[in-house]
Amino acid sequence: MQDKLNELKRHLSEAYDLWNIGALLNWDQSTFMPKNGAAARGRQLGLMGKITHEKRTDPKIGRLLDELSSYEKSLPADSFDASLIRVARRQYEKDLRVPASFMAKMMSHFTDTYHAWVEARPANDFSKVQNHLEKTLDFSRQYAEFFPHDHIADPLIDESDEGMTVATVRPLFADLRNQLVPLVKKVAEQGAIDDSCVMKHFPEKDQWEFGLQVIKQMGYDFDRGRLDKTHHPFMTKFSLGDVRITTRVKENNLTEALFSTIHETGHALYEQGISMDFEGTPLAEGASSGVHESQSRLWENLVGRSYGFWEHYYPKLQATFKEQLGNVPLDSFYRAINKVEPSLIRTDADELTYNLHVMIRFDLELDLLEGKLAVKDLPEAWRARYKSDLGVFDPRDENGVLQDVHWYAGYIGGAFQGYTLGNILSAQFYDAALRANPSIPNQIRNGEFGSLHGWLKENLYQYGSQYSPSDLIQKASGSPLTVKPYIAYLQEKFGNLYRV
Amino acid sequence: MQDKLNELKRHLSEAYDLWNIGALLNWDQSTFMPKNGAAARGRQLGLMGKITHEKRTDPKIGRLLDELSSYEKSLPADSFDASLIRVARRQYEKDLRVPASFMAKMMSHFTDTYHAWVEARPANDFSKVQNHLEKTLDFSRQYAEFFPHDHIADPLIDESDEGMTVATVRPLFADLRNQLVPLVKKVAEQGAIDDSCVMKHFPEKDQWEFGLQVIKQMGYDFDRGRLDKTHHPFMTKFSLGDVRITTRVKENNLTEALFSTIHETGHALYEQGISMDFEGTPLAEGASSGVHESQSRLWENLVGRSYGFWEHYYPKLQATFKEQLGNVPLDSFYRAINKVEPSLIRTDADELTYNLHVMIRFDLELDLLEGKLAVKDLPEAWRARYKSDLGVFDPRDENGVLQDVHWYAGYIGGAFQGYTLGNILSAQFYDAALRANPSIPNQIRNGEFGSLHGWLKENLYQYGSQYSPSDLIQKASGSPLTVKPYIAYLQEKFGNLYRV
Repeated sequence: MQDKLNELKRHLSEAYDLWNIGALLNWDQSTFMPKNGAAARGRQLGLMGKITHEKRTDPKIGRLLDELSSYEKSLPADSFDASLIRVARRQYEKDLRVPASFMAKMMSHFTDTYHAWVEARPANDFSKVQNHLEKTLDFSRQYAEFFPHDHIADPLIDESDEGMTVATVRPLFADLRNQLVPLVKKVAEQGAIDDSCVMKHFPEKDQWEFGLQVIKQMGYDFDRGRLDKTHHPFMTKFSLGDVRITTRVKENNLTEALFSTIHETGHALYEQGISMDFEGTPLAEGASSGVHESQSRLWENLVGRSYGFWEHYYPKLQATFKEQLGNVPLDSFYRAINKVEPSLIRTDADELTYNLHVMIRFDLELDLLEGKLAVKDLPEAWRARYKSDLGVFDPRDENGVLQDVHWYAGYIGGAFQGYTLGNILSAQFYDAALRANPSIPNQIRNGEFGSLHGWLKENLYQYGSQYSPSDLIQKASGSPLTVKPYIAYLQEKFGNLYRV
Repeated sequence: MQDKLNELKRHLSEAYDLWNIGALLNWDQSTFMPKNGAAARGRQLGLMGKITHEKRTDPKIGRLLDELSSYEKSLPADSFDASLIRVARRQYEKDLRVPASFMAKMMSHFTDTYHAWVEARPANDFSKVQNHLEKTLDFSRQYAEFFPHDHIADPLIDESDEGMTVATVRPLFADLRNQLVPLVKKVAEQGAIDDSCVMKHFPEKDQWEFGLQVIKQMGYDFDRGRLDKTHHPFMTKFSLGDVRITTRVKENNLTEALFSTIHETGHALYEQGISMDFEGTPLAEGASSGVHESQSRLWENLVGRSYGFWEHYYPKLQATFKEQLGNVPLDSFYRAINKVEPSLIRTDADELTYNLHVMIRFDLELDLLEGKLAVKDLPEAWRARYKSDLGVFDPRDENGVLQDVHWYAGYIGGAFQGYTLGNILSAQFYDAALRANPSIPNQIRNGEFGSLHGWLKENLYQYGSQYSPSDLIQKASGSPLTVKPYIAYLQEKFGNLYRV
C-alpha cells in the first residue's frame, strides 16, 4: 500500500510542480518580462495549462485513488494520508468532469476576452466586449452544467469557496447588507473626513523601505519570498519555500502601497504558514477564496488600519516623512486612513462600503446566470445599483462595468463572493485569536505580532486545505461562519470614528 | 504535405517552448529566487527536462520527418522548409540515440556534482569532488559511445561545435599556440602596465547607468530584453522577443561590469538578430558555441576594448567618474583595460593570455578521456601546465582545477574549445565586415554601430542555425575557419600597445 501511496504522491507532486511553473510564467509576465515577450508567453502559458490538466487527469491517478480507497477508510479522517487521498480525489473528480477540449476552448476565449477588455476599458467602450461577455456567460453556464447543482451558480461558487451555495450566500449577504446600509448612511451624514495628509508627495523609495520594515516585523519570511512591483498587486507561490508578493506605489497617495503590501502579506503569511509536510501535495494551498481573503483583510484592516498599530508605527512613519507628516497628529492620520466615502471603484473603496461593491457584483452575476439580465443591459443595471446602494453615479463604463478584470478573464459567477466572505471571516478569526490571547492588542501597540501570527499559524495556516472551509472555520473559531463579529467590529470602529 | 509540415511545426514549437520555460526557471533561479526556493526549483527543472526530452523524442516527430523526406528533397537546401526539416531531423536523431533513463541518471549526477563543487571550491578541497568527477568522466565516455566517432571526444565537441573534431581542433590550436606564446613572452618582457586607474571606487549605480547607455547604443533592444544582476553573467532566451542578459558589478573594479555587460550583449545581439520567421523552430538559435562566442568577443574586445571606441566613450566615462578618471588620459585608460598579465583565473584573463587557459583545459579533457590522465592526478597536471604555459603557480586548487564550473555541471569534453574558436572567429568576421564597410572603425569612433551591427545581422545573425557552422563561416567571411585574421589582430594591437 505504501508503494501505491508513494506513486500517488509522485504524480501529485508533478502536477503541483507543473502548476507552479505556470505561476512563475505569470509572475514574470507581471513583473519583469519585456514588452515583446508577450506573444511567446501566451503560448507558454497555454502549453503549461494543457500539460498540467493532462497530468491532473492522468487515469493512473484515478486507478491509484481507487486502489487506496480501503486504506483511506482504515485511517483517521484527519490523518495526513487520508486527507491527501480525499483532497486529491476531490480535485481529480472535479478536473475529470470537464473535457480537456472544452477547457482549452474556454481558456482561449478568456484570453481573447482579456485582450479585448484591455482595449475597451481605457476607450470606455463596452461594445468592444459585449459579444465576448455573452460568450463568457454561455461558457460559464456550460461549465456549471458539468456539475450537479441546485442553482446554476453553485458549481462556480464552489470552485473557489467549497461548500458555499447561492442558498447559503444570499441570506448571509442580505443579513450583512441590512446591517451595513444603516451604518453607512449614518456615517455619510457626518460629512467627509479630511484625508489630505496622506495625499501629499511621498517618494517611492521611502514608501518602499517603510513597507519592507512593516512586513518583516509582521513575520513575512524573505528567505521564502520577495516583494516586487506590478500594475496589480498579487501574491503567488512556486513552492512553500517561495511565496512572493507584489505591490504598486503611488507617490501622491501614501495608502496605496502601504495597505496593498500588507494585504498581500496577509495572503503570503497564510501560504508560508502551511505545514512543510504538505509540500508537493494538493494540501499545500489555502482552504478557499474566503478563508484566504480573511487573512489579507485581517492583516490589512483589523491590524493595519487599527489605532493600536499606528500608536507604534506612526512615530516611525513621521520620522520617514518628517515634512509631510511631522505636524499631523496621530488622530488625524488614523481618521484619514479610515475615511468612509461611497465611491465608484471597488478597489479604492473603504473598509465599510467595500462589501456593497462586492454584493452588487454577486447579485448581477446571479441575474445574468439566471437569465433575468441580458449582457447588453448590464451597464445600465450596474449604474442603477450603484445609484440605489451607494448613492453614486457615473455615466462612464470605465468607472462601472469595465472596472474589474474578473469577468473579462474568467467565469461570470463565483468570482466575487470570496471578498466579502473574507471580510466576515477576518473578524471571526481575529475574535477567536483575541479570546485565546487577550494581550494581542497590547502587543500590536508595541509592534509585536508574534502571538497573533502564532495563533493563526497554529489554528489556520498549518492546515492548508486539509479541512473543508466549513470544518476549518468551526475548528479554528469555535463556531460556523457568522456575520456577528464582523458587524460588531465595524459598528465599534466606525461608531467611534464617526461618533454615530 | 502542408498539413504534415504544420503538424511538425506544432510539435517543434511545443518542444521549443518547453525548453524556454526551463530557461526561465534557470534565469529566475540565478536572479531573483529567494534562498528557500531552491529545493522545489531543482524538482521543477528536473521535471521540465524530462518533459522536454519526451517531447523532443516523440515518435510522431520521427514519423513526420520520414513522411516529409521526399518533400524536403524537392526543395532548395537553403529554403526555410528544407532547413527546418534538416535541422529538426539532426536534433531528433541525436536526442534519440541517448536513452531517457541514461539522460536522467546523468543529469541527476551533474546536479549532485554541482552541489559538491559549490562546497569544495571555497573549502579548497578537491577530494570533495574527486569521486564525482571520476563518475562524470565515465558518464562522458558512455554518452560519447552512443554516437559514431573517431576520437572519444568528438561527439562531445560536436555537441556544441557541430562539425569540429579532435582532428581539426588540435592542429588549429597548435598553430595558434605556436604564434601566441612568443607574443605573450615578448609582451611580458616589457613589464606590467599600471591599471590602478580602473581599480578605484566606482559606485554601482553609476556603473550600471553607464553600461545601459553603451549597450543601448550598440543596438540591444530593451523591448525584447532586460539586464539584471547575477553572480555569473549570462545571456538567456525565452523567445526571440525575450532575450535577457545579466551582469555583475564590482565597485573596486570598473572593467568587471562594463566588459561582462558588453560580452553578454554580443550574445544577445546575435539572438535578437535571428529572423523572426524562425521563432518557435529549432532554427531560432545560434549556429554553434564558437560562432556564438565570436559575437560576445567581437563586441567585448574588437569593439569594446578598441582605442576608437573609447575616443567616443571615454569623455562620457570621465564625466560619470570625474573624481576617479578626470585626470587620467585616454591613453592610460586604454592601456589599463588592455593590460596583459599571465594569471591563474581564466575568467579574469586578458585578451592575449585567455586562449592559453582554454587550451590547457582542452588538452586536459583529451588526456582524461583518452585515459592518459587519472582524475586523482588532475590537480597536479593542471598546475604543471600553468607553470609551463603561463609561468604562474599556486598550490591552491580553488585557483586551479576547482575554478571553472564546467566539469562540475556537465561533461568532461567539449566544454571549452568554443571559447577559443570564438576568439578566432571574432577577428575573421570583423575582418569581413571591415572589407564590406571600411568606414566601420570611423563610425565606432563616433559611437555609431549601425553599419557593423547591420552587416552582422545580414550575414550572420538572421540565419540562426539554418546553416552548419562551417557553411555559415564560409558564407559570411568568404573563407573557411582561419586563425590568420586573429593572429594579425593580436599582433597589431598588442604590438602597438607594448611596442614589440
